[in-house]
Amino acid sequence: MENAAPTTDWADRTADLLEAVRTRAPLVQCITNTVVQNVTANVLLALGASAAMVDVPTEAGPFAGVADGLLVNTGTPHAEPLAASLEAAAAAVVAGTPWVLDPVAVGSLPVRTALARDLLALRPTVLRGNASEVLAVLGASAGGRGVDSTVGTEDARDAAVAAVRADAVAAVAVSGAVDLLVAPDGAVRVANGTGLLTRITGGGCALGAVVAAFAAVAPGRPLDAAVAATAVHTIAAELAARDAGGPGTFQPLFLDRLASLTPEDVVREARITTDTAAAAGTTGGAAS
Amino acid sequence: MENAAPTTDWADRTADLLEAVRTRAPLVQCITNTVVQNVTANVLLALGASAAMVDVPTEAGPFAGVADGLLVNTGTPHAEPLAASLEAAAAAVVAGTPWVLDPVAVGSLPVRTALARDLLALRPTVLRGNASEVLAVLGASAGGRGVDSTVGTEDARDAAVAAVRADAVAAVAVSGAVDLLVAPDGAVRVANGTGLLTRITGGGCALGAVVAAFAAVAPGRPLDAAVAATAVHTIAAELAARDAGGPGTFQPLFLDRLASLTPEDVVREARITTDTAAAAGTTGGAAS
Amino acid sequence: MENAAPTTDWADRTADLLEAVRTRAPLVQCITNTVVQNVTANVLLALGASAAMVDVPTEAGPFAGVADGLLVNTGTPHAEPLAASLEAAAAAVVAGTPWVLDPVAVGSLPVRTALARDLLALRPTVLRGNASEVLAVLGASAGGRGVDSTVGTEDARDAAVAAVRADAVAAVAVSGAVDLLVAPDGAVRVANGTGLLTRITGGGCALGAVVAAFAAVAPGRPLDAAVAATAVHTIAAELAARDAGGPGTFQPLFLDRLASLTPEDVVREARITTDTAAAAGTTGGAAS
Repeated sequence: MENAAPTTDWADRTADLLEAVRTRAPLVQCITNTVVQNVTANVLLALGASAAMVDVPTEAGPFAGVADGLLVNTGTPHAEPLAASLEAAAAAVVAGTPWVLDPVAVGSLPVRTALARDLLALRPTVLRGNASEVLAVLGASAGGRGVDSTVGTEDARDAAVAAVRADAVAAVAVSGAVDLLVAPDGAVRVANGTGLLTRITGGGCALGAVVAAFAAVAPGRPLDAAVAATAVHTIAAELAARDAGGPGTFQPLFLDRLASLTPEDVVREARITTDTAAAAGTTGGAAS
Repeated sequence: MENAAPTTDWADRTADLLEAVRTRAPLVQCITNTVVQNVTANVLLALGASAAMVDVPTEAGPFAGVADGLLVNTGTPHAEPLAASLEAAAAAVVAGTPWVLDPVAVGSLPVRTALARDLLALRPTVLRGNASEVLAVLGASAGGRGVDSTVGTEDARDAAVAAVRADAVAAVAVSGAVDLLVAPDGAVRVANGTGLLTRITGGGCALGAVVAAFAAVAPGRPLDAAVAATAVHTIAAELAARDAGGPGTFQPLFLDRLASLTPEDVVREARITTDTAAAAGTTGGAAS
Repeated sequence: MENAAPTTDWADRTADLLEAVRTRAPLVQCITNTVVQNVTANVLLALGASAAMVDVPTEAGPFAGVADGLLVNTGTPHAEPLAASLEAAAAAVVAGTPWVLDPVAVGSLPVRTALARDLLALRPTVLRGNASEVLAVLGASAGGRGVDSTVGTEDARDAAVAAVRADAVAAVAVSGAVDLLVAPDGAVRVANGTGLLTRITGGGCALGAVVAAFAAVAPGRPLDAAVAATAVHTIAAELAARDAGGPGTFQPLFLDRLASLTPEDVVREARITTDTAAAAGTTGGAAS
């Protein structure tokens, strides 16, 4: 922890952005896999955002131009959502809609891997995935096994730093036991969370939508959005886990906590540290 | 509330129809969006009905001929369910199977808007949606933003009355804080409910399936079916909300309440009023 | 119950296999209907297995070669998952990956019925369904009504015994109030369970995935896998039902119980009996 800086400002900014999400209720378009569509929508609604799963061609592009944020997740890349993904991402770029790429299980699986790289070429606002997925989509490894990562978040650090420095993406959110958020202006670790997020489906996929919601209310501040989304998601999960009897009761309690989480909860519970080594001395504060 | 009439007979009829659903366990075919398929099936099963999501072409039409009711929801109009929707609705008309059209997010989105109008031309038994969706599919406005309504239920009243008088549809169910149910023989308001229904995905979409289940046991009485379905759905939700800690715990409690709701609960909790102005002096009683 | 044999060894083997699933965390590929994808993944994760819904052509086959188990469920047979199903099953056969066929609502519905018979021709490790589905896919009846069985498990006994003796499939799992598991070396009944499993969607479909997870850790022992999966699934459900207020709260409690179920729970609660008549005097013990 020799690189740990005080967390006060990150926690405060996270609390402010949580209030902004609730006040503005950003409309987040989600093109995501059919396994997690329901939980993704429920997470956004619990948070105070609005969700619309517009994922057919000819609808997806125009909608991305009016939505406040966009999530593209490659989990079940059937022909129609695949075409809709590319159409929506391109329209988001034109309209300036912030968008998140979640390259689920990218690596050896050919359809989603080609799709994720095509999407990456459109330069997402935030790339979010587990370490194996991030490494695979950035061309730095062959990917994990199925949807699970086979490496830790720190293993994806160098590739993420290189990607943001090359401006391939504005920020990278690497999910894991400790989440790693990387942007040109700094790197941040969020240590909140619970193992129960890996015992339910959508624990990570829904976070991609939360990042899009926060990016919608933090224009030009992708690192702030990624940090705040990750902290809110994992703090709510951590609090829910305290009352849960297992992965089943965890899910409704998690949604309740997302809905009731206060700025005070965020400031009290946040375990956010700036990684001063990653960004040549810049601090998280520079991102605000 | 100057138009309010006594609610006793509506509540009694609702209680009777709830018993009929449980006794007959109607088989409801659902062609609905992938976001809410799970919760829609669970709501039907909790209610005592049976659910079958038969949504591929060549299967959907023949099945609509043997099912007791049909729901067509335009939420994720991919090519196969789109074709299946038209096939099923046409077969339902031929077979006399009551069917419900739920025009999710119709308005500016082209695929679903064209689909919903093609479906409307087949004359659904009940058209159910929020005010923006109802106005948009009836050609009276450009629709809401995403899946959310931008106007109140009363704003859709004139268009709904005109549609049922023109026999474009047998009944219209406009969902909102106070639900408005309209048929040629009268208009009814149901004031039950909870804001939590708008904080979960499927709160409205599942109601479309419930309307189909009630229509299946109330042949020729679309207003009764729409009122009873709306009242049962919103009363169960209202009771569940009393015990819920938020939108997460609300969902399982809502299903529990749907399963355990008694006729006495319905009569005690129902806030149903006849809108005597809407239908030139006819009363709800005339519909039975 | 004149055919009932002591259950001790079946319960012990079930407890051992539960421990094996948790230790090895088999990766189960699921090509299943969109209604139950979420609950299926959550059941596998709660159990300690890993889930991946890889259901697009060109990805599904190669993945079946590296997955530990495969479930193919015919519930929503759209063109892409249909092609993926055949590709994955063929690859599983070549690779020796154990796989389960769940012929949801097979019978009068043409697309899934043709698909299920094509899949059956590839000889699944385990065929799992309700009695109507098992009879229909084996060509012995016209099927049930929608997704519900119209006959009891015992009605499917002769057809199941004939199928395994003809080596059409290694084992058959007929789900119902009392589950019937049939293999060439014996037949077994599992009497655990709760009616609430029929009041939620996916109660049976998710069991197909659980069978695949157990088959993954019991190579060459399909009857053991089918018995253990059925017992674990229905015991967890039975324990959850004791605390549930209805079908809604049952679901999270069921997942909690799957996650927390101990070998001692299994041995204490299991109601497993060998059907000595079905297999000409062989006993369940011969299968281990």
